[in-house]
Amino acid sequence: MRKKIAIIDLGSNSVRMIIMKIYEDGSYKMMDQAKEMVRLSEDMGDEMTLKPLAIKRTLFTLKLFKKLIEAHKADEVFAIATAAVRNAVNQQAFLDKIKLETGFDFRVISGEEEAYLDYMGVINSIKIGDCVIVDIGGASTELVWVENRRMKEAISLPFGAVTLTEKFLGKGNYTQEGIKKLIDYVTKQYKDIEWLSRVDGLPVVGLGGSIRTLAKIDKRKIGFPLESLHNYTMEYKEVLYAYDLVTKANIESRKDIPGVEKDRADIIAGGLVPVKALMDLLKADKIVISGNGLREGMFFKYYLETLGYEDEILEDVLSHSVENTLKNYDVNLEHCEHVTKLALSIFDQLQPLHGYGEEERKLLYVGAQLHDIGMYVDYYNHHKHGFYLALNSRLNGLRNRELVMCAFIVAMHRNEEFKVDWKNYNMLIDKNDYEIIKRLSVFVRIAEKLDRNESGSVEDISCYITPDSVQMMLKTSNTPELEIAAAMKSDRVFEKLFNKKLYIV
Amino acid sequence: MRKKIAIIDLGSNSVRMIIMKIYEDGSYKMMDQAKEMVRLSEDMGDEMTLKPLAIKRTLFTLKLFKKLIEAHKADEVFAIATAAVRNAVNQQAFLDKIKLETGFDFRVISGEEEAYLDYMGVINSIKIGDCVIVDIGGASTELVWVENRRMKEAISLPFGAVTLTEKFLGKGNYTQEGIKKLIDYVTKQYKDIEWLSRVDGLPVVGLGGSIRTLAKIDKRKIGFPLESLHNYTMEYKEVLYAYDLVTKANIESRKDIPGVEKDRADIIAGGLVPVKALMDLLKADKIVISGNGLREGMFFKYYLETLGYEDEILEDVLSHSVENTLKNYDVNLEHCEHVTKLALSIFDQLQPLHGYGEEERKLLYVGAQLHDIGMYVDYYNHHKHGFYLALNSRLNGLRNRELVMCAFIVAMHRNEEFKVDWKNYNMLIDKNDYEIIKRLSVFVRIAEKLDRNESGSVEDISCYITPDSVQMMLKTSNTPELEIAAAMKSDRVFEKLFNKKLYIV
Repeated sequence: MRKKIAIIDLGSNSVRMIIMKIYEDGSYKMMDQAKEMVRLSEDMGDEMTLKPLAIKRTLFTLKLFKKLIEAHKADEVFAIATAAVRNAVNQQAFLDKIKLETGFDFRVISGEEEAYLDYMGVINSIKIGDCVIVDIGGASTELVWVENRRMKEAISLPFGAVTLTEKFLGKGNYTQEGIKKLIDYVTKQYKDIEWLSRVDGLPVVGLGGSIRTLAKIDKRKIGFPLESLHNYTMEYKEVLYAYDLVTKANIESRKDIPGVEKDRADIIAGGLVPVKALMDLLKADKIVISGNGLREGMFFKYYLETLGYEDEILEDVLSHSVENTLKNYDVNLEHCEHVTKLALSIFDQLQPLHGYGEEERKLLYVGAQLHDIGMYVDYYNHHKHGFYLALNSRLNGLRNRELVMCAFIVAMHRNEEFKVDWKNYNMLIDKNDYEIIKRLSVFVRIAEKLDRNESGSVEDISCYITPDSVQMMLKTSNTPELEIAAAMKSDRVFEKLFNKKLYIV
Repeated sequence: MRKKIAIIDLGSNSVRMIIMKIYEDGSYKMMDQAKEMVRLSEDMGDEMTLKPLAIKRTLFTLKLFKKLIEAHKADEVFAIATAAVRNAVNQQAFLDKIKLETGFDFRVISGEEEAYLDYMGVINSIKIGDCVIVDIGGASTELVWVENRRMKEAISLPFGAVTLTEKFLGKGNYTQEGIKKLIDYVTKQYKDIEWLSRVDGLPVVGLGGSIRTLAKIDKRKIGFPLESLHNYTMEYKEVLYAYDLVTKANIESRKDIPGVEKDRADIIAGGLVPVKALMDLLKADKIVISGNGLREGMFFKYYLETLGYEDEILEDVLSHSVENTLKNYDVNLEHCEHVTKLALSIFDQLQPLHGYGEEERKLLYVGAQLHDIGMYVDYYNHHKHGFYLALNSRLNGLRNRELVMCAFIVAMHRNEEFKVDWKNYNMLIDKNDYEIIKRLSVFVRIAEKLDRNESGSVEDISCYITPDSVQMMLKTSNTPELEIAAAMKSDRVFEKLFNKKLYIV
């Protein structure tokens, strides 16, 4: 199977599209994406009518998207419309017009389905068990209670960044009185949701353009070293800082806040008030930003069904993402698998020596699996390229600190010294983490050398810890002299890190 | 067609292997490589017999390589042996033994064929018209005179880094007298080659481990910002510096010279004297280091024949490599092609304004073609990823300065500011180059926006230069309002760089 699909999401504020390619081996990749701020819900008013100008802008953009889809030769198009269209009295006329002029069959989804797709986008790309997902759209807000990775409750509320702005804040400058009324309004609506009173203290996972902007403001402020917004985490006080910046500025100075897009400056307060109010209500002390939502949820739903997965969600976000990454970079899967097996075997047997637990074991697993991805760029210096790719390839299922640690393990899987400006990352990892990285990367290094001919001929390792040494006995049908010699090149580093001599026999 | 081939090159000093994958679309990539310093020619002596220990080491390594080949499931193996085997009196017995124990059918190639394959490796991956190629091996040295990209003369000389070391320098410390004798010896042999007297002043292209070491010493010394050795260029005085360092040090301090591998320290002078002597003789003022040689030449020969190319060499190294890179990163080829066409059209029509020539046009071509490769890593920040990939993906046919300039054009193809520590690259590009980059990247930016739906709907552009403005008239069947609006976002930058207002109609 090899397929390209386009997913269009027509919201109240913007219309967005992703084009995903599913390769024959089941791996996938985003090929393109597009967004346009069409403000479809503009001036709908209380009579809930989509207005001619807004319709015109939307149709215009959809025609552009159609061309992009054709250029990509996508096999299937999934077009979904949310709140603005859902609520519009002239919905059918609008959809007929779209169908006539673009051929797109838009499906208007309910607020509950929207919430479900948000959940699918989040739960298949962020490793989190319990949380409250909030998606602040242009004209609606979805809330999902996730317990043990399953959707327990979901609701869609009929307000969003655009509608709240129109109702309470006017088009230009906000008054603090308007902000206050807005807070009261959304808080009252939250309080009407019975289950929200039972989720106190859960972390919030936030979606949508306003919340991404929140993250961008914070990232700029602290000089965050990673590119991706997905999985970015903010403490409550950091949210408060950005919130104050946005709500207290006038329209002009708001445009100048680093991280705020100019065409969002007018509605950003309308989008952030509901988030902050929710965190206050739940006494949530942090928010995790998800770059994935509706469209990615739609993709995962399609993907999991089409590829015949039994469960409706991925069982393990991390291992799925690792496998996808390995296939994207066309690495020798058996070799990665075998190096991982050997490295984990060493890790487990030397547990009394290092005392690490599941957390570190997971980092080792990822580092060992990904150690060769850099070869896709070039064989030479592939450890450095692997560092770059690991950091930037949307690897899901790790927190940012973990991601950085895994990237360093990849970078240090060869004997050469890896020179990087370590200080760039000290916002995320400390000296102790560095020590962990060094130790785990030695395990990968030894495992890699023992499978240097990539044939799995060293089947397993038995480790014996003596008072002053570690002896590794290899289970193999050959006499792996060269492998041993190569692995033994790590003996000095090993001794330095573990205070024991290394013997491999 | 989809094929994996392994190419093994059994030299006098080392045995090396590359595994290449040719994809269905005709693109290719190195999947793995391996090398082992087996020193096959060690102690061959004047009676020219391969010795048992050397044979044992070699067989051992070949068996390892066999496993690696099996792990990669390579479809075909090309195994070639050079000088040590060529000259050995026990050649047949040795080859039979290899065949029996590994199944490899080694083909012993003549010195002339070796020179030809070196030439094939160089000429298909470095853009150079006239040069002298020199490949210093372990037991032989090949010289090729290239004129207008064609091989005009070729010769193989029966000395190399290992044999010269054994003959003149002993195993450990060199005496200056030994060095002197060595210089006289090789110079005399060079002087016997009639055509060498006719190539005065041509640049030298150098191959082989010794010459790569020469480049490594220089790179370390100056803190060169790029990873790849391929295409690295050294002036004569820089060669002299490294040469002095190597020939004047004793064996122990030689091992400590940054860039010199420990297991090469004993033969490095034996490998460098012939290079320096050749440059002296030819009065060559620079040497270009090629990372590609025999094995890559073998690959290109196979590739070009198998894919039915008419000529025995690539017509255009750069465009071939660009296409291969685009395919490796699975980009939308039509879109790249179209953006390139539009960008070059703008460039050509605005020639009176910028006054640039073929050189800059080439940079624009590459930058426009590659502008989207970073999407393979992630859509977000793909301009940054593109910068990294362009710099590190073995793009052939550009000099290093040009490569860096193209990478910057890729990085700046979107509106956002690209933040990079510019100073890292000021060894290669200066302020004037930066000005060129900025101007060329504006052309890519405008072209990209005009093809934002990737459908080629803006067919061409006519530019009119007036005293205070540039007007671009679009040839299109649509009304590309959004495209124009998007392209016009570059108006301020354009005005700043060209001192004229920009209008697109």
